[in-house]
Amino acid sequence: MPIPAGLSGQLAGLLGPRGWVAAPDAAPWQRDWLDRYGEPPLGVARPASTAEVAAVMRLCHAAGVAAVPQGGNTGLCGGAVLDRPGGVILSLSRMAAIGVPDPASGAIEVEAGAVLATLHQALDGTGLMFPLHLGAEGSARIGGLIGTNAGGSHAFRYGMMGDLVLGLEVVLPDGTVWDGLRAVQKDNAGYQLRRVFVGSEGSLGIVTRAVLRLFPAPRQRASALLALPDLAAAVAFGTRLRAEAGEFLTGLEFFSDLGLDLALKHVSSVGYPLSIRGGAYVLVEVASGSDLVPLDDILGGVLEWGMEAGLVLDGALAASEAQRAAFWRLREEQPEGQRLEGPQLKHDIAVPPGRIAEFVTSAAALCEALLPGVRINPFGHLGDGNIHYNLSPPQGAADFAGTEARLALRLARLATDMGGSFAAEHGLGRSKVALADALRPPTERALMAALKRAFDPRGRLNPGVVVGQPESCP
Amino acid sequence: MPIPAGLSGQLAGLLGPRGWVAAPDAAPWQRDWLDRYGEPPLGVARPASTAEVAAVMRLCHAAGVAAVPQGGNTGLCGGAVLDRPGGVILSLSRMAAIGVPDPASGAIEVEAGAVLATLHQALDGTGLMFPLHLGAEGSARIGGLIGTNAGGSHAFRYGMMGDLVLGLEVVLPDGTVWDGLRAVQKDNAGYQLRRVFVGSEGSLGIVTRAVLRLFPAPRQRASALLALPDLAAAVAFGTRLRAEAGEFLTGLEFFSDLGLDLALKHVSSVGYPLSIRGGAYVLVEVASGSDLVPLDDILGGVLEWGMEAGLVLDGALAASEAQRAAFWRLREEQPEGQRLEGPQLKHDIAVPPGRIAEFVTSAAALCEALLPGVRINPFGHLGDGNIHYNLSPPQGAADFAGTEARLALRLARLATDMGGSFAAEHGLGRSKVALADALRPPTERALMAALKRAFDPRGRLNPGVVVGQPESCP
Repeated sequence: MPIPAGLSGQLAGLLGPRGWVAAPDAAPWQRDWLDRYGEPPLGVARPASTAEVAAVMRLCHAAGVAAVPQGGNTGLCGGAVLDRPGGVILSLSRMAAIGVPDPASGAIEVEAGAVLATLHQALDGTGLMFPLHLGAEGSARIGGLIGTNAGGSHAFRYGMMGDLVLGLEVVLPDGTVWDGLRAVQKDNAGYQLRRVFVGSEGSLGIVTRAVLRLFPAPRQRASALLALPDLAAAVAFGTRLRAEAGEFLTGLEFFSDLGLDLALKHVSSVGYPLSIRGGAYVLVEVASGSDLVPLDDILGGVLEWGMEAGLVLDGALAASEAQRAAFWRLREEQPEGQRLEGPQLKHDIAVPPGRIAEFVTSAAALCEALLPGVRINPFGHLGDGNIHYNLSPPQGAADFAGTEARLALRLARLATDMGGSFAAEHGLGRSKVALADALRPPTERALMAALKRAFDPRGRLNPGVVVGQPESCP
Repeated sequence: MPIPAGLSGQLAGLLGPRGWVAAPDAAPWQRDWLDRYGEPPLGVARPASTAEVAAVMRLCHAAGVAAVPQGGNTGLCGGAVLDRPGGVILSLSRMAAIGVPDPASGAIEVEAGAVLATLHQALDGTGLMFPLHLGAEGSARIGGLIGTNAGGSHAFRYGMMGDLVLGLEVVLPDGTVWDGLRAVQKDNAGYQLRRVFVGSEGSLGIVTRAVLRLFPAPRQRASALLALPDLAAAVAFGTRLRAEAGEFLTGLEFFSDLGLDLALKHVSSVGYPLSIRGGAYVLVEVASGSDLVPLDDILGGVLEWGMEAGLVLDGALAASEAQRAAFWRLREEQPEGQRLEGPQLKHDIAVPPGRIAEFVTSAAALCEALLPGVRINPFGHLGDGNIHYNLSPPQGAADFAGTEARLALRLARLATDMGGSFAAEHGLGRSKVALADALRPPTERALMAALKRAFDPRGRLNPGVVVGQPESCP
């Protein structure tokens, strides 16, 4: 791509010294979170308003220069950096305003650069809450969460990010602004455009503002940590729990015995509070907006049933907020424990929740055949079937002996054949586009390419994510 | 459009005598539910399989003939009939298979022609339920509910139809089949194509099968009918109710004193069970999957608070299933009461739930200015802000004196200006496309036209709905 000499100057003039970071100082924005992707940009635009985003896009459009929006840059798939030198990174971090929550409507307007944890804090004490929770919430920004249709641990009850967006404001590739800032759940006045932008990884437009759905903050909760013989027992237990306590279920997480080992080995502050080890562990959290709900009795009743049925080997209800936090750390430190063990492969799989155990069994055979002794550490979200199927090399081995791509492809195909997904909540970004192209039927590939072409005919917006380079409209 | 003489014969040969209804016998399918739209078709194709749908579309595509899918034909906006003579109506009613529900995954696969109430019945006794409920459920079919992104009375808690669809199979305008039959909540392996088809009124593709999300069936419920001074009180009461009992709220409906009058006047089996009349009425229903939840206490507590706060004038908890049904009939007979009163205008508005009373006040002034004495009967869904804002002519007047279009436009603009929608849960169909074109900003119109063009470049699929005739890709 030719880099027009004048664009950097135009952008500097437009945005001022706080708003334009020219190439030599752009290093902090260049690379993705895992340092796998990201070519040097022409510079980083840090607009302070929708009008400035629109002006940046008009200039990039006129100059024929690629642009990629960047939120907290916490994504695991490299979707928020450039695939070619000389494009513009649009950091939304200066657009971080958070509006006033409306308790009567259950909604709030926020700018795309607002950090998720800051939104959580802003709602403290209002009686309302925004129910998206994930590991990166201290850095992840609303626009990025919309762009990746983020999931997390509460999605089973409250939905994914796309389900929590009532309205959007989006700057299109040519700099025009789509004002879709509605604030109602029911809106069928045409195609569901906001749903098109959700999960599009900044490749169709740049989200600048959103109206988000809020929920009443729970007034009480109860948490339990359970040891079970295996994942099949966890699935059976989860089915019963959904039937008995589905409306309260804010968390239903699982991890493996290997994962527990790694967390205990590498993360000093983690401890195991039960007396029996199992083949699988489940963390349950229930919450209610009413003080009249006997949450402990409801959760305790299902636990008792699980023990009598032989599905639960051991379990404890959290007796304090500190104990609850300790339970959650066991689950949340799973990635950290494995990271500190050495090289790893991450796969973000979803299968129908009832088939989690079946997937894990079939996947183990598949992995063992490709790389005998590979250490398998599945953990994730039992409620929605999202498995972070992570691998460590065989004991004593330094790496995966070149099996990475084959492992990824076969695991992805297994999940897809089971009615699931190989890109559940992390998206495709740059790291999984080739995998997606290998797995997508031609019809699906053509539909996605047509959608990209319809919204971004010149292919200038975050090129290289979601779909391979589509041809322009002939 | 030229009607190719050979297409009817080709379709008859393809589909056989049960599958092809030629023009002279096509009258039962020709007109919409309200008998306002529908030109004579070449015939009605009644395919029995996805392969047959695909073959029909290939033939129509080759012949350059328009096709429109039709489900239960219960829509109120004329979206499932032809806007021009000589096209093909695709009735999906022979594709009505309902799969086996999967309790562990909370999902079921159904064909597009399955009737909603039949799906409800098929799930009876399984411990699972499909939570979409609306007046037409005895006739409405799954494909049509997906095409219109149907809402109904349970949407506040469980979502709209689009939120309940995990996967789709869709036949595209040229007869190719997109297999998007996944069964997981988390799937970000590319653009959210299933969300693009939801609410597209058959203008982008023909839905043939779907994987739907199921929920645990509640084991207990409680219902209450309340009389309140006005809608402002209803909004305040609803806000409190959401905070205290949000996770149980399966219904939060409202209607007006005029609506109650009309129902009592025209529907003989309806009775009013409270001793005081109010300015507004609210029907509350809460349900729980756990027998341990003291539902009556929770609902009773909020009622008591409402009475002490002066928000509730009178109220009753349903003491039996018969009384519960009688409460619901008061709400459900609102359309019938008004229909029997004579001419009426229906508007399907949504505003942020906290602004319902404000909308109704502003709208009343607007209507009174245009047509003094017009009788206003708003009813609908307090939880999600969906107001069926229906009008009867002034007492003694035979009609609306030519104010229909102006009323519709001004009410729609008022809703839109408040962050709402003029097409909340009924869609646009043919009846609101002109209104949509008048209200949409050019950017939004261009995006929707681009989307239509991308998926249906020749504009042969249900032409005339959602967007005006878009130009083909140059």
